Amino acid sequence: MIGVGVIGYGYWGPNLVRNFSDIPAVDLRWVCDLQTERLARLRLRYPAVKITEDMADVLADPKVDAVAIATPVFTHFDLAMRALCAGKSVFVEKPITTTSEQAQRLIDEADRRGLVIAVDHTFIHTGAVRKLREVIRKDLGEIYYYDSVRVNLGLFQHDVSVMWDLAVHDLSIMDYALDARPRAVSATGMSHVTGEPENIAYLNLHFDSRLMAHVHVNWLAPVKVRRTLVGGSNKMIVYDDLEPSEKIKVYDRGITLDPMAPRAGERRNQMQIGYRAGDMFAPQLDITEALGSELSEFITCVEHGTKPSADGTAGLRVVRILEAASRSMANGGAVVELPRERVLA
Amino acid sequence: MIGVGVIGYGYWGPNLVRNFSDIPAVDLRWVCDLQTERLARLRLRYPAVKITEDMADVLADPKVDAVAIATPVFTHFDLAMRALCAGKSVFVEKPITTTSEQAQRLIDEADRRGLVIAVDHTFIHTGAVRKLREVIRKDLGEIYYYDSVRVNLGLFQHDVSVMWDLAVHDLSIMDYALDARPRAVSATGMSHVTGEPENIAYLNLHFDSRLMAHVHVNWLAPVKVRRTLVGGSNKMIVYDDLEPSEKIKVYDRGITLDPMAPRAGERRNQMQIGYRAGDMFAPQLDITEALGSELSEFITCVEHGTKPSADGTAGLRVVRILEAASRSMANGGAVVELPRERVLA
Amino acid sequence: MIGVGVIGYGYWGPNLVRNFSDIPAVDLRWVCDLQTERLARLRLRYPAVKITEDMADVLADPKVDAVAIATPVFTHFDLAMRALCAGKSVFVEKPITTTSEQAQRLIDEADRRGLVIAVDHTFIHTGAVRKLREVIRKDLGEIYYYDSVRVNLGLFQHDVSVMWDLAVHDLSIMDYALDARPRAVSATGMSHVTGEPENIAYLNLHFDSRLMAHVHVNWLAPVKVRRTLVGGSNKMIVYDDLEPSEKIKVYDRGITLDPMAPRAGERRNQMQIGYRAGDMFAPQLDITEALGSELSEFITCVEHGTKPSADGTAGLRVVRILEAASRSMANGGAVVELPRERVLA
Amino acid sequence: MIGVGVIGYGYWGPNLVRNFSDIPAVDLRWVCDLQTERLARLRLRYPAVKITEDMADVLADPKVDAVAIATPVFTHFDLAMRALCAGKSVFVEKPITTTSEQAQRLIDEADRRGLVIAVDHTFIHTGAVRKLREVIRKDLGEIYYYDSVRVNLGLFQHDVSVMWDLAVHDLSIMDYALDARPRAVSATGMSHVTGEPENIAYLNLHFDSRLMAHVHVNWLAPVKVRRTLVGGSNKMIVYDDLEPSEKIKVYDRGITLDPMAPRAGERRNQMQIGYRAGDMFAPQLDITEALGSELSEFITCVEHGTKPSADGTAGLRVVRILEAASRSMANGGAVVELPRERVLA
Repeated sequence: MIGVGVIGYGYWGPNLVRNFSDIPAVDLRWVCDLQTERLARLRLRYPAVKITEDMADVLADPKVDAVAIATPVFTHFDLAMRALCAGKSVFVEKPITTTSEQAQRLIDEADRRGLVIAVDHTFIHTGAVRKLREVIRKDLGEIYYYDSVRVNLGLFQHDVSVMWDLAVHDLSIMDYALDARPRAVSATGMSHVTGEPENIAYLNLHFDSRLMAHVHVNWLAPVKVRRTLVGGSNKMIVYDDLEPSEKIKVYDRGITLDPMAPRAGERRNQMQIGYRAGDMFAPQLDITEALGSELSEFITCVEHGTKPSADGTAGLRVVRILEAASRSMANGGAVVELPRERVLA
Repeated sequence: MIGVGVIGYGYWGPNLVRNFSDIPAVDLRWVCDLQTERLARLRLRYPAVKITEDMADVLADPKVDAVAIATPVFTHFDLAMRALCAGKSVFVEKPITTTSEQAQRLIDEADRRGLVIAVDHTFIHTGAVRKLREVIRKDLGEIYYYDSVRVNLGLFQHDVSVMWDLAVHDLSIMDYALDARPRAVSATGMSHVTGEPENIAYLNLHFDSRLMAHVHVNWLAPVKVRRTLVGGSNKMIVYDDLEPSEKIKVYDRGITLDPMAPRAGERRNQMQIGYRAGDMFAPQLDITEALGSELSEFITCVEHGTKPSADGTAGLRVVRILEAASRSMANGGAVVELPRERVLA
Repeated sequence: MIGVGVIGYGYWGPNLVRNFSDIPAVDLRWVCDLQTERLARLRLRYPAVKITEDMADVLADPKVDAVAIATPVFTHFDLAMRALCAGKSVFVEKPITTTSEQAQRLIDEADRRGLVIAVDHTFIHTGAVRKLREVIRKDLGEIYYYDSVRVNLGLFQHDVSVMWDLAVHDLSIMDYALDARPRAVSATGMSHVTGEPENIAYLNLHFDSRLMAHVHVNWLAPVKVRRTLVGGSNKMIVYDDLEPSEKIKVYDRGITLDPMAPRAGERRNQMQIGYRAGDMFAPQLDITEALGSELSEFITCVEHGTKPSADGTAGLRVVRILEAASRSMANGGAVVELPRERVLA
Repeated sequence: MIGVGVIGYGYWGPNLVRNFSDIPAVDLRWVCDLQTERLARLRLRYPAVKITEDMADVLADPKVDAVAIATPVFTHFDLAMRALCAGKSVFVEKPITTTSEQAQRLIDEADRRGLVIAVDHTFIHTGAVRKLREVIRKDLGEIYYYDSVRVNLGLFQHDVSVMWDLAVHDLSIMDYALDARPRAVSATGMSHVTGEPENIAYLNLHFDSRLMAHVHVNWLAPVKVRRTLVGGSNKMIVYDDLEPSEKIKVYDRGITLDPMAPRAGERRNQMQIGYRAGDMFAPQLDITEALGSELSEFITCVEHGTKPSADGTAGLRVVRILEAASRSMANGGAVVELPRERVLA
């Protein structure tokens, strides 16, 4: 049995508690939160779980092997570092930290102590994104573009911009599904509430290849959209996360190129571009709840000292992009280079 | 009767011919094209219209008051200038020219001669875009963003990029529907066919206000999308041009702001952000064919010497943005300022 | 406090338990089920609730004022009658009973004892159906037709046909939303699994007026559809329960009639039929969970002896139609008259 | 060259003329209509075609081999019979005639004279319906049901009900795509305009097997729907004719049957029903214009004396069903047996 404590019982914490309590190998021992009314709600549902407002109680329990941190982003680093220093493995909400320097320090600390650090990139545990990765890597050929729209009305955050709140999903999905790592990033955004962070943002990711990635995130949209287009030389994908069952559609469409006979008044050596419109295919997806698989994987990693799908370095890569995008946004959309990832691969 | 000649009978020319021939006030006298098989097809359908491969025949006819030019973009300036110099008013396909300097020269020439110059910004004559303008100006309050996605598979052009081919529609719609003019533009794009212009592009338009505009155009998408979101402080719009009848949906949604009592650990003076989710309303739209209305307006302008909805300066404003966007794209997405439009307003 | 016992903890019972436990005025005392593993699951989640496999324990508790019955349909009558005879008010799943004679006996027993009997017509407590009723009664004019499609893959029932399982929803919605009561019913259906009840069925409801109602239910459809069209002389409605937010759309569309001048070769006195295509309007809907409102209403009725929205007679009216439809189906679709409802109105 | 005359230049006639004039093997000689303004419009577009208000002119022309009849339904029989008696092959709009007796007489006359008679069941020449037939016959296994919804606002007809106007499409598609022929039919409908034919109707087709077919047609619907569900033992189809490209979707879904261990309180020998949810597949469809293919086939049949896909007996089978459905509708929805088709197969 792996002893677990959950820190934070606000919006996401209850999902962690529910899923941990369904894993047979887990001994869910503690939930910690600063608001007593939340803890009262918990006690009613999970009378066997101990509650506290002081994280020290959790860390002091020798039967706790791991803590899951579901608190505001700006607290992630401190809480995770305290947990690691107390010898506990850590599962932390996305984004892992507010700076890449913090993320690096957590990774180093976990490495030093032989502890697991996992970051909650939930989407990469969905059947849809697992299939997305598979199709991208097997069927698409050269990847031309990755375009995501993730917009809806709310929830405005006070401490992070829409980019850190929503684009983090797209960045973690790309980190998982694509073979390539971005070389640079540029971003623009706007805040429409004085004194608050940006509520609309556009990110461009630049790669060494001809691949372009673009993300549109928006807290102030009239409708909810969760749609990603991925274009390749052989096939193309529409990933619509709001579709009830056909979330991934693979289109056997694209262009064909043939040398063209030059015509009067036209440039030489042009290619004749043809259009290929073939079948569409929507594969059946695994519908297991992502968070359940993810937490099971984390527990297995803690048991065996293995690496989770989204480890600290995955979290770090995503934060590096967000940091660079924030810098770009502050500089009118200038292109900001990302550090070469020799160490991070 | 206004005598009309049509120059170019390729993709769009037949639509001009069909619509001109339905306007009672028009005497459609000539069609000119370089390909004889196209002219043969025309002769079968419209035996009364004279055909020629030499534009000089059209310009020499004293009964021709106006010519409509539907030829490749790079020929617009020369053909339009010849027509103006022959004393004919001009209706020219979008974009008006390939450079703003050319557009300015056409405007000057037309002014000098008291001739009409109209550019075929077809969309602004649709019921949908007319309603879009009305709702934006009457109901939306402060405009926060304008976001358009215009993607599909094909048709790749050899002489202009996807931006000059597709984004020109969005720029002309914004020019018509919005009250504000952009201050600067930045753009990124990519060509996936060696030696050909960009087939995917993203444009950001920057304004003096908090308004952001963004356009995504793509010739290599698996599905066709024509969707614009417009967010305002009072209402928001979804304009989906592929909807058969409800192209414009107006959402009574948005956020509300109230001062928030500061809480422990949070910044002061934050606003409490609430969400307003009200009714949706899809107004009935005028379904007259846009091109018909547009050509009728042009003929009326030629008759009475009045200004068309999209005159040469509208065409110039759009080309200025495309030029600046091209420069930005060539410079890695750098922000390019637009000239102040004292003269153009 | 109203003491409550829940009978049946299978598919629907957990929803009843969760909602009852959120109502402050409810003392949820017992859950009864025949399967011990279900009760074990309950104990984990709701340790304060007593569990039993014998309903007599629940009925013997003098602090229990009402029982909610969520068991297979064929058991409804016996269990509800036992509860009423023990002086408990009853909330029972739909359909209320398997025969109208049984439903009448329950109504009579409840009346005799001054107890409340409510039937779980959940949909009539949704914001969508409440709005549907309002628009039908206020805006539609003469109601021309009510057409519902309710199809999906599964869940096949062994003891009732798809009609008793799915059409019961449509019949309860019509019972609530329409002003009129059907005069007769006809139905056809088919079983595609030997020995099992019909898995596809079509019902026609006939009224004294020109109103037609039709219901298509199907357990063996490739996609899920929940769409109702309602046509009236003034307006028309699309109610699509799968739409995330715009479930009710009101169309200002219809026909106009003008006397037509007779033409050679045509009949006299024909009407010239015109088409009116106006705005569409999707009102914002109340999104409170229906079951919560419904159980609160039931508890209030038990407290004050008032009638619930769906009382025993509503349940009886629906069962009468299902009975008649079953007779029709067994007789090749013959029209079966419904009893005149002098008593039931 | 096959000489052709077109009778009727109202709603559909112009499509016939346009398509005939694109077939190289056709010598389009005459168009006949009673309204001179229509003929004037034609003359402008097709100056080489002779026009007349008297069909005798067409029939007297020895170079006319075939006539296409696009006039009101009640005139089909007379005009087609006159054409056959003049030795011309006939292409006639759907439905072929207003009675099956008339259709039989046309078939007999054509047979006697060795002439071709084709009925314009346009849909069976679309890529979508051709694929529908192929998938139904190859992949679906036992066919369980065929369910079509074909509704929209308008156009009300004065001389035929919505069933003869719209359901005729579904009946001709079923006649083509299904292997089975219906044994009996029942129908209900209603007119909401006094003195006019039914504007809403529901048809049930009964077969010797477990196949059920059902058609809903409606001229008074707020939205346009063209959706057919076909369920089989192996796969299921959604055919949505309004989808721009994915009109046919094949779902690898259905149920599985296993003997079930009897449980206390349940019937014996029940089957355990499982649900199979697999991939979805949307085959690329041939997008050639249906009417063009259809007329080409007709011309080839006239040239070589072969049978068209929809010959007179296909037209007769459809009219027999419409006749029976009308009788059923007049008799309150009673089941009406269809004649056994020994001769017609």
